[in-house]
Amino acid sequence: MTSERQKSIGIDIGGTHMVFGLVDEQGRLQWKQKVKTDLSQGFTSMLAVIEAQVDACLTETGWSREQVRTIGIGMPGRVDADRGICLHAANLNLRNIPVAAEVARVTGMSCYINNDVRMYNYGEAMHGAGKGKQYVLGVTIGTGMAGAMIVKGEPYGGSDNRAGEIGHIPLEGVGTRCNCGMTGCLETIVSATGLARSARNVVKEGVDTVLATYHPDPASLTAADVSRAYDEGDAIAIGIMHHAGARLGQVLASLIPMLSPDVIIIGGGVALAEERLLHPVREVLSRLVSRAFLDGMDLTTALHNDDAGVIGAAAWATRCEKGER
Amino acid sequence: MTSERQKSIGIDIGGTHMVFGLVDEQGRLQWKQKVKTDLSQGFTSMLAVIEAQVDACLTETGWSREQVRTIGIGMPGRVDADRGICLHAANLNLRNIPVAAEVARVTGMSCYINNDVRMYNYGEAMHGAGKGKQYVLGVTIGTGMAGAMIVKGEPYGGSDNRAGEIGHIPLEGVGTRCNCGMTGCLETIVSATGLARSARNVVKEGVDTVLATYHPDPASLTAADVSRAYDEGDAIAIGIMHHAGARLGQVLASLIPMLSPDVIIIGGGVALAEERLLHPVREVLSRLVSRAFLDGMDLTTALHNDDAGVIGAAAWATRCEKGER
Repeated sequence: MTSERQKSIGIDIGGTHMVFGLVDEQGRLQWKQKVKTDLSQGFTSMLAVIEAQVDACLTETGWSREQVRTIGIGMPGRVDADRGICLHAANLNLRNIPVAAEVARVTGMSCYINNDVRMYNYGEAMHGAGKGKQYVLGVTIGTGMAGAMIVKGEPYGGSDNRAGEIGHIPLEGVGTRCNCGMTGCLETIVSATGLARSARNVVKEGVDTVLATYHPDPASLTAADVSRAYDEGDAIAIGIMHHAGARLGQVLASLIPMLSPDVIIIGGGVALAEERLLHPVREVLSRLVSRAFLDGMDLTTALHNDDAGVIGAAAWATRCEKGER
Repeated sequence: MTSERQKSIGIDIGGTHMVFGLVDEQGRLQWKQKVKTDLSQGFTSMLAVIEAQVDACLTETGWSREQVRTIGIGMPGRVDADRGICLHAANLNLRNIPVAAEVARVTGMSCYINNDVRMYNYGEAMHGAGKGKQYVLGVTIGTGMAGAMIVKGEPYGGSDNRAGEIGHIPLEGVGTRCNCGMTGCLETIVSATGLARSARNVVKEGVDTVLATYHPDPASLTAADVSRAYDEGDAIAIGIMHHAGARLGQVLASLIPMLSPDVIIIGGGVALAEERLLHPVREVLSRLVSRAFLDGMDLTTALHNDDAGVIGAAAWATRCEKGER
């Protein structure tokens, strides 16, 4: 059986797991597999896993190498998409690896790579919450926080492919040291890590909050606990979430007049907080930003969340293969 | 005499004056004329001036309509560049005017239009301080303040062509009402108007400053007076300039991690303040922004200043005519 439609394999590479998916041209995920990231032999062991999973995908779905043809990869760190090179991925301990060429060599298929946050938001821009929009600003909030702009279907790169570091925009009056070496970065407040830290801090200070009852050791508190306490009506948890939303809103208020996005998509694990987080963002935006920008602009959570990275990487490969960039 | 090289006429339309220039493909201005903007009959009178000045340009330079062929126009307000329509230019009182088609009709030449700040920064990106750079962030500071991003030779539009309003990014702790209806916009501090207001305010408050000696009426104080007093070593004037530079630096610190420009170009009349303004900007950036972004990034004043708009509009027309967009 053959198909007129282009299918592509998307791979979302993370520090602990890699997700593989077969995606059709409408962005529908037809097969998915999650495996551990194997870095025991550096890129060599990672490449072996990719080769094996691509084989498994084709075997299990019954599609041939000629029918699928393309692989798209989203990976952390700085990526030179034009040359297919991973410039530097600190958490994978990779530097200057010709990933696209190597994957193409072992799979016999065309391979295109890009940054994982860009691919996540490319997936949302093409087939998710940003579908049909020209100017998409994606903000992905998980352990850390990063952003991506997809402009008319093209991920915005920036000098040396460094753009998108919304999590490292500095906040006045915040003294928390960030992993990046600077102080007061947005992600020290708005991230799973930041929310959990805020929760830990209030419990350690002996504040009266239901958060104190969740774990014997406050170090175990998570961002999900903050959402849970929020839903129990805990004023402290509500305050933590509102503070994070307000700070996110303040930074978005600085970006919107300059970028004028059609849509802002909040994704990643922390996006599961939904309106608990977005309500204070909206409140700050309506106070600080002119209606000229807000009236036509959507602020929403990601549609595909966990799958957006795989869908985006596959869609990116399809686009690159067609020579549309 | 014929030339292999493409020449183009650039027009920079402002509320009080229009500047016409003949520009060669290297961005060199070969002829220039500045005339009053005639809005007595709305767009009709403006069009008549354009027709007459294009004729004058060709007559005076000896180039034929076939040799020059293209006209580029930068004009204020929101412009639909793809359709050649002025959507809304408040200070020209124009709305939904098919400017490109009308200019093409009366001149017999191809015409392309765009927003004036974008054309100014397009001129700087292609033939000025941003030459050879892929990610150019231009900030034009005059009576007001606006920005433009030129990404790989293409002006960034944003939703509804509203992008670039860096002057309307809100500042915490600033209570000055802005013309836009919001409060605390950056341009209330960083603009010729803002600098003059600060100067007036200190004089009215009876502060000991040389600014008090410049004019019988403090209402006559200008941004240039602040630079003059700065050069006389006046601590108050230095403070006003440092405050403006610090606020500009603070906003740029919010944009740089997200956009990662190769170069930030400060243009417009206030850019004549040069290092008096840029020094405090640099100081704030080095404190708030990671060296990963700053090390490869230039911060500089515009090279062509007054002429950048005409040079950019002409270069834009040449690019559009070649079908490179």
